[in-house]
Amino acid sequence: MGNKNISMAVIRRLPKYYRYLADLLSKDVQRISSKELSEIIGFTASQIRQDLNNFGGFGQQGYGYNVEALHKEIGKILGLDRKYRAILIGAGNLGQALTNYTGFRLAGFETIAVFDANPKMIGLKIRDFEIMDSDNVEEFVRENDVDIAIVCIPKNGAQLVADKLVRAGIKGIWNFAPIDLEVPSDIIVENVNLTESLFTLSYLMKENLEG
Amino acid sequence: MGNKNISMAVIRRLPKYYRYLADLLSKDVQRISSKELSEIIGFTASQIRQDLNNFGGFGQQGYGYNVEALHKEIGKILGLDRKYRAILIGAGNLGQALTNYTGFRLAGFETIAVFDANPKMIGLKIRDFEIMDSDNVEEFVRENDVDIAIVCIPKNGAQLVADKLVRAGIKGIWNFAPIDLEVPSDIIVENVNLTESLFTLSYLMKENLEG
Repeated sequence: MGNKNISMAVIRRLPKYYRYLADLLSKDVQRISSKELSEIIGFTASQIRQDLNNFGGFGQQGYGYNVEALHKEIGKILGLDRKYRAILIGAGNLGQALTNYTGFRLAGFETIAVFDANPKMIGLKIRDFEIMDSDNVEEFVRENDVDIAIVCIPKNGAQLVADKLVRAGIKGIWNFAPIDLEVPSDIIVENVNLTESLFTLSYLMKENLEG
Repeated sequence: MGNKNISMAVIRRLPKYYRYLADLLSKDVQRISSKELSEIIGFTASQIRQDLNNFGGFGQQGYGYNVEALHKEIGKILGLDRKYRAILIGAGNLGQALTNYTGFRLAGFETIAVFDANPKMIGLKIRDFEIMDSDNVEEFVRENDVDIAIVCIPKNGAQLVADKLVRAGIKGIWNFAPIDLEVPSDIIVENVNLTESLFTLSYLMKENLEG
């Protein structure tokens, strides 16, 4: 089916719903009204009803939402009802942090190989992974079933790596390099730009001071 | 003055303009039209003119923008015409990656101390920083001039640390813990939620496949 008409603003709120619903589940909460959800999440109740209506009528008027069913449904919408095989390119500090973070694996994202271009890094181990030579990434993606590439390398070189990944048939790139990668429109790129986030912080602090 | 009426969507695009303008400056480009800028950044020319008009008339009809002046002006708007003193709490992999990233320092954000709660970490060194005991963070912020706290600790404990920071007078928190911190409205929190970003990627990949 697909939900092509859903705005990115709504999409970006879904992981937050998913996280809060998981919290509620862990506390054995079974039903919750949009008003109660609103108090926890901080969106208005009407925003919540509107967001969730985008994906079909979850709630029952007067009964609230079934927490477990809603959590499962949003998981499905987010594509979390399957596993993803990921490789990581760039085994610096950030790459190591991401490789070591077990939360991603628990959510269904499994790293299957780690690459680096630095000869001093190749062969070293992170967790169970012997770091492989970035030169071999294209071949590896071709020969293995890889869904996602996590790109943790500096700006220079990131586009070249992206080109290789695209040629090899990658479907999604989680990009931490501070550059807008050029890829065909059927490849999904999700950027995490830490510097842009930091500059947003400084902007908001400045505005706050100036009133 | 303050630009309270500017939408967050515009604000979030400013660091991108800033980055592309810096690139142009490094290539000695002196003037650029909204059309040329559009081709590089990927926003429409009318979007660019509209965004920049929010902050006063930068461009001159028919002459385009002065790259250096525009870069400097956007830097000012972002609050980058001053220095920020930051502390980092949580010296795990991610905390180490952020501490080691020189890009932030070059942009005016200087880390002045690193904290961790783990007795095995306290006293170890990251770059020039001897890791300090998190128990002392409140006192440190009180006694030193700290603008920003970078919170890189797990979900549990993050709110407690935020409470201490707020009591000690912190003005901004760059939060990597997967939790929405509750702080008074005059404290700015900018969240980086990696799991939410990853889930957005999986959503978009799913939508892409289902067409």
